[in-house]
Amino acid sequence: MIKVGIVGGTGYTGVELLRLLAQHPQVSVAMITSRSEAGVKVSDMYPNLRGHYDTLAFSEPDADQLGSLDAVFFATPHGVAHALAGELLNKGTRVIDLSADFRLRDADEWAAWYAQPHGAPELLDEAVYGLPELYRERIKTARLVAVPGCYPTAVQLGYLPLLEAGLVDTGRLIADCKSGVTGAGRGAKVGSLLAEAGESMKAYGASGHRHLPEIRQGLGDMHSAPVGLTFVPHLTPMIRGIHATLYSQLTVDPGDLQARFEQRYANEPFVDVMPAGSHPETRSVKGINTCRIAIHRPENSDTIVVLSVIDNLVKGASGQAIQNLNLMFGFDETTGLSAPAVMP
Amino acid sequence: MIKVGIVGGTGYTGVELLRLLAQHPQVSVAMITSRSEAGVKVSDMYPNLRGHYDTLAFSEPDADQLGSLDAVFFATPHGVAHALAGELLNKGTRVIDLSADFRLRDADEWAAWYAQPHGAPELLDEAVYGLPELYRERIKTARLVAVPGCYPTAVQLGYLPLLEAGLVDTGRLIADCKSGVTGAGRGAKVGSLLAEAGESMKAYGASGHRHLPEIRQGLGDMHSAPVGLTFVPHLTPMIRGIHATLYSQLTVDPGDLQARFEQRYANEPFVDVMPAGSHPETRSVKGINTCRIAIHRPENSDTIVVLSVIDNLVKGASGQAIQNLNLMFGFDETTGLSAPAVMP
Amino acid sequence: MIKVGIVGGTGYTGVELLRLLAQHPQVSVAMITSRSEAGVKVSDMYPNLRGHYDTLAFSEPDADQLGSLDAVFFATPHGVAHALAGELLNKGTRVIDLSADFRLRDADEWAAWYAQPHGAPELLDEAVYGLPELYRERIKTARLVAVPGCYPTAVQLGYLPLLEAGLVDTGRLIADCKSGVTGAGRGAKVGSLLAEAGESMKAYGASGHRHLPEIRQGLGDMHSAPVGLTFVPHLTPMIRGIHATLYSQLTVDPGDLQARFEQRYANEPFVDVMPAGSHPETRSVKGINTCRIAIHRPENSDTIVVLSVIDNLVKGASGQAIQNLNLMFGFDETTGLSAPAVMP
Amino acid sequence: MIKVGIVGGTGYTGVELLRLLAQHPQVSVAMITSRSEAGVKVSDMYPNLRGHYDTLAFSEPDADQLGSLDAVFFATPHGVAHALAGELLNKGTRVIDLSADFRLRDADEWAAWYAQPHGAPELLDEAVYGLPELYRERIKTARLVAVPGCYPTAVQLGYLPLLEAGLVDTGRLIADCKSGVTGAGRGAKVGSLLAEAGESMKAYGASGHRHLPEIRQGLGDMHSAPVGLTFVPHLTPMIRGIHATLYSQLTVDPGDLQARFEQRYANEPFVDVMPAGSHPETRSVKGINTCRIAIHRPENSDTIVVLSVIDNLVKGASGQAIQNLNLMFGFDETTGLSAPAVMP
Repeated sequence: MIKVGIVGGTGYTGVELLRLLAQHPQVSVAMITSRSEAGVKVSDMYPNLRGHYDTLAFSEPDADQLGSLDAVFFATPHGVAHALAGELLNKGTRVIDLSADFRLRDADEWAAWYAQPHGAPELLDEAVYGLPELYRERIKTARLVAVPGCYPTAVQLGYLPLLEAGLVDTGRLIADCKSGVTGAGRGAKVGSLLAEAGESMKAYGASGHRHLPEIRQGLGDMHSAPVGLTFVPHLTPMIRGIHATLYSQLTVDPGDLQARFEQRYANEPFVDVMPAGSHPETRSVKGINTCRIAIHRPENSDTIVVLSVIDNLVKGASGQAIQNLNLMFGFDETTGLSAPAVMP
Repeated sequence: MIKVGIVGGTGYTGVELLRLLAQHPQVSVAMITSRSEAGVKVSDMYPNLRGHYDTLAFSEPDADQLGSLDAVFFATPHGVAHALAGELLNKGTRVIDLSADFRLRDADEWAAWYAQPHGAPELLDEAVYGLPELYRERIKTARLVAVPGCYPTAVQLGYLPLLEAGLVDTGRLIADCKSGVTGAGRGAKVGSLLAEAGESMKAYGASGHRHLPEIRQGLGDMHSAPVGLTFVPHLTPMIRGIHATLYSQLTVDPGDLQARFEQRYANEPFVDVMPAGSHPETRSVKGINTCRIAIHRPENSDTIVVLSVIDNLVKGASGQAIQNLNLMFGFDETTGLSAPAVMP
Repeated sequence: MIKVGIVGGTGYTGVELLRLLAQHPQVSVAMITSRSEAGVKVSDMYPNLRGHYDTLAFSEPDADQLGSLDAVFFATPHGVAHALAGELLNKGTRVIDLSADFRLRDADEWAAWYAQPHGAPELLDEAVYGLPELYRERIKTARLVAVPGCYPTAVQLGYLPLLEAGLVDTGRLIADCKSGVTGAGRGAKVGSLLAEAGESMKAYGASGHRHLPEIRQGLGDMHSAPVGLTFVPHLTPMIRGIHATLYSQLTVDPGDLQARFEQRYANEPFVDVMPAGSHPETRSVKGINTCRIAIHRPENSDTIVVLSVIDNLVKGASGQAIQNLNLMFGFDETTGLSAPAVMP
Repeated sequence: MIKVGIVGGTGYTGVELLRLLAQHPQVSVAMITSRSEAGVKVSDMYPNLRGHYDTLAFSEPDADQLGSLDAVFFATPHGVAHALAGELLNKGTRVIDLSADFRLRDADEWAAWYAQPHGAPELLDEAVYGLPELYRERIKTARLVAVPGCYPTAVQLGYLPLLEAGLVDTGRLIADCKSGVTGAGRGAKVGSLLAEAGESMKAYGASGHRHLPEIRQGLGDMHSAPVGLTFVPHLTPMIRGIHATLYSQLTVDPGDLQARFEQRYANEPFVDVMPAGSHPETRSVKGINTCRIAIHRPENSDTIVVLSVIDNLVKGASGQAIQNLNLMFGFDETTGLSAPAVMP
């Protein structure tokens, strides 16, 4: 049994960590911090946790206390992990950062997209990008893991078998993505109100979204060269879920694409290649850490359409964070992550 | 490890049994029947079950095979369990019926509300009404359990402490209930379409609903006399959840009502009396077997308002069925039912 | 053609006034104020208005300019109309207040529920409660109209025929009401987020809501004596609509209740008594000024259940405000309010 | 005042015609047919029409009666208009067909996609494709108009200025489209239930959808050559609305794209080119006949992203049908179609 802490626990990724860890037999949540809610019991803020964490309360962040734990999750806005991660690592605490702070390898690119200097460039070399399907071995020994963003997870897992095998034109990739509203966080914004976001669909960030450089970096790694990517996210009137629709153009005869995908993911516990002809639904992964994928080749043309769905709060955030934790601490990779999705 | 079967598994209570039993360490689902879907794998119909029941397929109902199992759940329309239950009991198989077939003790009343003769009146004497908070000891030794309906569960648990203690006028009880659309089942009905039931609220069955006699019977048992009840269900634009708003008039000084409720349910694993002043949300029980209750006394008048929420498919159906199974087979009552609700 | 202004136009009742007035042939909106959005075009904030108000922009409130108009709507939080109404009336401008400022006749009661002193008690005598079905003649000559709240409109229209005729026990009225989330306004509150209010139902204000004294005053007027009322509002996962479920106990033989309701509302253009046995849906009044009502007497008992639905933003606010305007200025009462509801 | 009929009026496009025509001062609906609902009043099936069509009832289709009218709308499944249109034209009645029967010019292609022979190839020559932004003059004198499908309308209007001007590579067009569930009609299908389609997103028909050849034909006309198009529709958890996200690659310097779109649509009453940088929401056109469009060029690359939204039941069906009627009968093109969208 290890002891973990959560910094910034009042948002959706924080409560989702608590929900999932309640089922994890080898992890105990010893501390959860929030400046604004210090003193409030987590089960008072999140009644779904009543009966599970009846004594745990939010506390002020305290580096000494956090530094006494085995691992700390950051479920914070960008910038916070920059300030604290180094100190915790020095105390021997492993850090799993759900924010964007350590996802980009290039501090200048980070600074450009986040409009502030990178706060911990000295840690970038050892930060491991926590996509187990690509970096499992490095994650096992990492002290600092950057959990991928929600869109980047869905997009990268969908393109991975195509790019690794060099099958498509990487200069013209198009990722049309649809997300539920929890992707915008728990902040009280007019645009996230039920009366505003309900019964409507819209694109946003069509001219540039912060997940774009992260996805580009990941796809470039698979391909070992820069890629050209158009990424358009859309806000969908649902609470959870991401649906990525991924377009690319074949440049070679791919053979049996379905078999290629199935083979690539044969040993992946959290990637489910659906039968040929399938259309995965986001609800089929609600609350779970699975990415479901289907491959289409319309009219047998050279355009490939990959459909990739995840729960943005699980495989897109807190579930993947726990998957990383399992790898880092030598637990079975699926520990605490094995329940079926709630459907309907 | 016991072996169980599910008769009529294509509906929402069937798939919910599968979802919950996937987490139950002492139960194996050996058979699931459906005439219309015989041969189809359950994970093809319900992709959330992919990875959990990859070989289980629907089969034609076969009394011999079902009779070789330890227990059989009926997740069927009314009338089906009447025809099969007796035969299974004779073979030594215990029966847990999620339909209405054995809920009413009076075969004539059943016949009147369901517009057909009762098909197994000889079994009514031994059928136990599966509300553990009232009948736990009888359930433990039962061979045949009638799982309460969804509305009846929410209403009875809300009124129970008031009626057992004789605090209110039982001639004028009013239960105003709101249900998500899964309460209407998975049948393809125009009124259940997203385009029809979405973004709207309506009452239905205001002049008489089949759950009325069941609730009345249960409340009468608590009170040891007939009760007068007005019950109006409403269709709410959400997938899961029941919210019961229960009105009654005090006839005596009740003392500390909050404490009375807390004491009555102190040892109940699946009833959560919320702090005074609370307003439970249905989402706080989404996917779980808990009933959350709050008690209000507006303006310190003699009108009591009890708010009671459940997930209609869990505590209102499949979860409660498993809770009964746990009692019948001597398992810990909460086995397989301990995950927190998914929220948001 | 008259000229009107709107004070506080950025909220839902403000934009709804604009939407409805765009179809009103005898009204021109000359001014709309908002301190926070001064200078912003209304069609930039509300793209549904593009093509309808392409030059109108929010401006700072200016009493002189407002005082030059024929009428001014207040679509403001409580307290604002107190401060401005008197000055406008002195300038000869008629005032139609959608807030709660002039709904209660008793300034002390207002102060108690709103936790601040009443700001214009000298105007209470001439303020007319703008429920045309009760006060049509007084409205026609009024200078200052207090538009009823949303819940009060649905509840009063549902009880009116019963109370006017003295048919029920007015000591034990129960109004169980369900509202869409626009009832909570356009403020950025966590509880109104799609991720929080979606897929869930809850009661709120069960121990006391500000619409309670307003409803009680109105019902008392119909009955000419104080009434006992329990009022429990619920938040429903939809954008618009109120469903009031109204319980009462008969004290006399009511004769043909259906006919009584039909006769009472025979000449009301905005009250639709549905056929016996109906269950009105809130979506059937989406976007329109109609209140639809159905009457039930379950099991022929002495309990009457009235179902009453409105659009909270139309008959519950902006539509009723325009209905009042039409009466005050001698226009046909239905002018600008005659489109059918959008359904589905 | 002209007299019109509606064949097949029980579906969503039928009731939407009734809703919109209730506001049309020059049209009277004399007949609406439905075999299954003959004798039922339209306001009994659609309570939003109460007070608007209180005597109109569904009747058996009768060619003689229909043939006595000025115009007949077909709001039917494919194949029905084939059988009746010729006879009505012969009687001098103009036909506006909302189904797919006359959209494709090539009878063989129609037969291939609809898996049955074309039933009226002799009428194809005179059928006019009812997209006024392209074929206004021909529509004015047409006897038989094929109203475009919902997806084809959104996609064609979005691509039109690019293709007419020859700015993009027409071999690699990608239309990623998202539709509300009314696009699937009012049929009682499991997949359209709130419990199935709610809180989820999925693609469908990724390998081939019947709107594909229609869109391809239309885009080919603009470009005067065949185009290569990938079209992936998605089911979105909302009632109304289509959001088309349209990708293409520039082949020449386009100059000021925003200005090009604004000029192309300057005189179009129902196409609204939004300001640069906009992201149109489907709710901004709910219930109205407008198509709103925004143009993006991410990172100033050669990829153009056009966002195009419509209400699938209005500009995508019944509203566009009335726009065609207005043109055919010499009414102002916007008659009956001028109300703002209901928002929120």
